[in-house]
Amino acid sequence: MPQPVINLSRGMPPVELFPTEELIECGEAALRRDGDVLLQYGRSPGYAPLREWLGEQHGVGPEQVLIGNGSLEILSFATQTLLRPGDRAFVESPSYDRAITMLRRAGAQVVGIPMEDDGMDMAALDGELQRGPPALMYLITDFHNPTGITTSLEKRARLAALAEEHGFWIAEDSPYRLLRYEGQDIPSLWSLAPERVLLLSSFSKLLAPGLRLGYAVGPADAISTLANWAVDTYIGPVLPTQGMVYEYCRRGLLERNIERLKGVYRPRLQAVLAALEKHLPQASWPRPEGGFYVGVTLPQGVEMASLLARSEEARLKLSDGRGFFPHPPDGDRFLRFPFCSVTPEEIEEGMSRLACIL
Amino acid sequence: MPQPVINLSRGMPPVELFPTEELIECGEAALRRDGDVLLQYGRSPGYAPLREWLGEQHGVGPEQVLIGNGSLEILSFATQTLLRPGDRAFVESPSYDRAITMLRRAGAQVVGIPMEDDGMDMAALDGELQRGPPALMYLITDFHNPTGITTSLEKRARLAALAEEHGFWIAEDSPYRLLRYEGQDIPSLWSLAPERVLLLSSFSKLLAPGLRLGYAVGPADAISTLANWAVDTYIGPVLPTQGMVYEYCRRGLLERNIERLKGVYRPRLQAVLAALEKHLPQASWPRPEGGFYVGVTLPQGVEMASLLARSEEARLKLSDGRGFFPHPPDGDRFLRFPFCSVTPEEIEEGMSRLACIL
Repeated sequence: MPQPVINLSRGMPPVELFPTEELIECGEAALRRDGDVLLQYGRSPGYAPLREWLGEQHGVGPEQVLIGNGSLEILSFATQTLLRPGDRAFVESPSYDRAITMLRRAGAQVVGIPMEDDGMDMAALDGELQRGPPALMYLITDFHNPTGITTSLEKRARLAALAEEHGFWIAEDSPYRLLRYEGQDIPSLWSLAPERVLLLSSFSKLLAPGLRLGYAVGPADAISTLANWAVDTYIGPVLPTQGMVYEYCRRGLLERNIERLKGVYRPRLQAVLAALEKHLPQASWPRPEGGFYVGVTLPQGVEMASLLARSEEARLKLSDGRGFFPHPPDGDRFLRFPFCSVTPEEIEEGMSRLACIL
Repeated sequence: MPQPVINLSRGMPPVELFPTEELIECGEAALRRDGDVLLQYGRSPGYAPLREWLGEQHGVGPEQVLIGNGSLEILSFATQTLLRPGDRAFVESPSYDRAITMLRRAGAQVVGIPMEDDGMDMAALDGELQRGPPALMYLITDFHNPTGITTSLEKRARLAALAEEHGFWIAEDSPYRLLRYEGQDIPSLWSLAPERVLLLSSFSKLLAPGLRLGYAVGPADAISTLANWAVDTYIGPVLPTQGMVYEYCRRGLLERNIERLKGVYRPRLQAVLAALEKHLPQASWPRPEGGFYVGVTLPQGVEMASLLARSEEARLKLSDGRGFFPHPPDGDRFLRFPFCSVTPEEIEEGMSRLACIL
């Protein structure tokens, strides 16, 4: 009998952690209480009570909140309203592959700024800024995808100052922020430059991705611009799921669910870091304090195509790191390890197979 | 005490007709049976069982069906994949205002072809075709928004032949097709030219608009192109509501709901036609056999801005007809009457007030 496949490539939450029964109950309660609103055409910025609730969480009014069918699409609205074809867009290198695709689709010239263990390489950023500011900078400040890096407060303050000085927009994508397993929260970039930053977040990692429920927090006039684009795109976002999530939040269940997730994910993060030290001492990686991923740079001499071929033979699924880098051939030695949907035992076994291959 | 406002402008279904309790039950059953799929990341063409079901309804396989968060957004995917800026797009004049906006947003040069009581003026269409075929033609063949007109079989056959001859795409928007109160179904344009037509439809008018559940049926390769665009836009459409609607359909409730809606809407259509004959004999209108709207052309000499001002004084809400026409000043004497969300008594009272104003 062949050994079981170990999947170290999927960035999905494990299905056994979905609070399905609670969501059923909340969906029912929401439709029973407010079905006339949740089943009718709605307004493009989203379901008013959920906007209000999200605003309260961020200390702003509902006019500073836009809800959408996933935060990726809100980024698409931002690229279509803030960018013109040919504009430059700065991203961390590596960055979320779908965001890079989105920026390119809007006609942006994507410029990757290398990452250090505490965020963007600021000297490299300064160099690029001298060649002209971007129209938009896309950043994942907390538990970055795909590396797991959290941008330091010093770098956040500098990025905020640069955005204000040069007048560019920042999309701060922050879906993992509440999944911190160690250490202390760092103020969001949005809180440091609220007039230049659109904070994007989502319930995908905190509750369930199938809900496709994302949101943006930003200046009221920018939110209004996004809402106008949204109404011409889909009239308004899907409503019954917004009612379900609002009910879930108002009952205080979200906070409890996040604690539950942390209880499962914390030992998985510890397991992946321990397995890396044990099996891949010659590789390098940052030390994430939360989120879903740790990004590993393998030793020189590794070549991705042959690594993937050999890992397939060993029944180990890895994600090709090259897709996260805007400028090939960067990423040829990079692997993203999502640790949340695998048990500590699977992590140990997977890393051991990888060490054998290397 | 002022007389109550009569609203003859809203194209929304009446909330009292939403089958809320049934939808709650179906949503619960779907999540309980298939929560692991409905709460996880899904595929961009939509929830597989609902694709399958919709395919069966149209006599095609699921690979010819794409589900989205409302059909308007699927049209946006079509404009972004089928059109290039500067391309011509033909629409009926008048047409659905949001579709015109969508085409223009994609950079299309929108050309309106005048309507006759049985569909597009084919001589005018031939004239425009001589100046060059469009990349895309957008049509509402059944119970057209905003006029209520149904395109005749003869014109459908001719349109199908022209699309094949000139090689252009047709988006056939058909959300009202199943809401026929009189007369016989006419084959869809899609059934006449399945290789050149994307059929768009939705559950907004058959079930509830807040679900934002639309779909397209078309050639497998075109559906696959739309699905690729969709995955880069939002990964996949919202899932729990797709599960809810699938459960509703598989239980056979949709057909019963449509019969129930027809029972309410049929007398409203009769009331609006009777009120027009009684109060506005000098105006002209087609004779819709289904759908949500009847479009009325007022006698010469009427001027929209002053009509709207005076109707507001009379506590009568009308929709400005000019938004439905791609070429101003067309539509200055046009009013769209949505008759589904008003009772026969309100229709009679509203038309009587309008007659007084005129």
